[in-house]
Amino acid sequence: MLPVINRTKYRVTYGDTDQMGVVYYGNYARLYEIGRTEMIREMGMPYRELEEAGVMMPVYSVESTFKDVIRYDELITIETTVHKLPAAKMEFEHRILNESGREVHVARVVLVFLDIKTRRPVRAPETLLRLIAG
Amino acid sequence: MLPVINRTKYRVTYGDTDQMGVVYYGNYARLYEIGRTEMIREMGMPYRELEEAGVMMPVYSVESTFKDVIRYDELITIETTVHKLPAAKMEFEHRILNESGREVHVARVVLVFLDIKTRRPVRAPETLLRLIAG
Amino acid sequence: MLPVINRTKYRVTYGDTDQMGVVYYGNYARLYEIGRTEMIREMGMPYRELEEAGVMMPVYSVESTFKDVIRYDELITIETTVHKLPAAKMEFEHRILNESGREVHVARVVLVFLDIKTRRPVRAPETLLRLIAG
Amino acid sequence: MLPVINRTKYRVTYGDTDQMGVVYYGNYARLYEIGRTEMIREMGMPYRELEEAGVMMPVYSVESTFKDVIRYDELITIETTVHKLPAAKMEFEHRILNESGREVHVARVVLVFLDIKTRRPVRAPETLLRLIAG
Repeated sequence: MLPVINRTKYRVTYGDTDQMGVVYYGNYARLYEIGRTEMIREMGMPYRELEEAGVMMPVYSVESTFKDVIRYDELITIETTVHKLPAAKMEFEHRILNESGREVHVARVVLVFLDIKTRRPVRAPETLLRLIAG
Repeated sequence: MLPVINRTKYRVTYGDTDQMGVVYYGNYARLYEIGRTEMIREMGMPYRELEEAGVMMPVYSVESTFKDVIRYDELITIETTVHKLPAAKMEFEHRILNESGREVHVARVVLVFLDIKTRRPVRAPETLLRLIAG
Repeated sequence: MLPVINRTKYRVTYGDTDQMGVVYYGNYARLYEIGRTEMIREMGMPYRELEEAGVMMPVYSVESTFKDVIRYDELITIETTVHKLPAAKMEFEHRILNESGREVHVARVVLVFLDIKTRRPVRAPETLLRLIAG
Repeated sequence: MLPVINRTKYRVTYGDTDQMGVVYYGNYARLYEIGRTEMIREMGMPYRELEEAGVMMPVYSVESTFKDVIRYDELITIETTVHKLPAAKMEFEHRILNESGREVHVARVVLVFLDIKTRRPVRAPETLLRLIAG
């Protein structure tokens, strides 16, 4: 049932940081990936199975806002929300909360559905739609 | 003189790719960093010197559009443009051209200026403004 | 009490893979970091606190053997063992088990203790030794 | 003619560093990859063509020694040497020199040759052997 919400914990590693002493801006995209992957796994359809079923979901666009920093060793929460049923595209909204629960980052990531063989656009698979509609 | 334009070549490594056989979406932010760093180095003020002068430039926002894929071993071009003089923020526009010169990716990255000690917002350093104004 | 053993689970992300369809060899070092960090956290002394107490532990050497591949989305186990009390150096042994429990990778990572201000070698902190000796 | 030596320059990015203010130990493997890739490209056989010819070269083992740190923005040299003709395996020796020319890191990386379809071991391709023997 919409919206679908997933919350996944993530422990910041040393490798995630840069010499400013905070998570490098280029490492947030991995966090979005973890969020959306855990969401669709929880729905009951691991992304791995989607690919095995012949559908891949490359990222089409990303919009990120860095409101505050994330520090080494923080146990952050990646909160991922899907607000509407996907058609040609699927949109994920991410909020990242630091260890004290404050929102420090927001992002909107849009993925498209492609046939894994032809690499041409397809509609969202029925199974996925049913899982989202719940 | 505005706009300032920099073109930097980059060779895609194996580590940049993912199992789709193309550059992982999370690795583009490194490319923007390379583009903007080479631009301000070319202007005459390496980012390292900015930090030594007490100013840091964390990223505030990123907007990316993935128009087509980039493949392993391609010698891509990162084209970086600054259209206007920075004040509290500095905006970089990036176009990525694949080996055959076609635009496959665009992004807009906004950075802010902070005092490296207090981590509070400051205006763009005069030296940088003069270099941009040319 | 020696040996100290820690087992930590890790889910392989898309970003960890490369175009061979398996975890990129350059991404294993992050796994070792996760293993040793969770081990010393479990002992009762997060690495963050070590640094706050003025000691840092850069890596001195790494020896890795890649016995088999790790695939996307596998829930692997990072098994970390410390066999002897550290003095000037601390040695971690890592075994990585794939989702079916088979050993696919082994590594030995040696870290040194440095004073975080002077960056000169120091002995392992007493607190850490007591936690290891258990 | 043996030994084959390649020297490739690399500019350290912000994303390469961690909060110790130096290149993260997990990012050196990318440097080895850049070194060996540029070496075999220079020989006249880009790795991409090797894969197109049906041979892949996964890494079998890595041995690294971190003698000193590498800092942000340094223009380092990756010096790669092949001392002997490969048979089932190919061994690369890497020395990393910092911007002032001092050796700060050494590594030995062994790769194996696999048939890209069967993923079974094969001998080094004749073309590659001829290029190395020069």
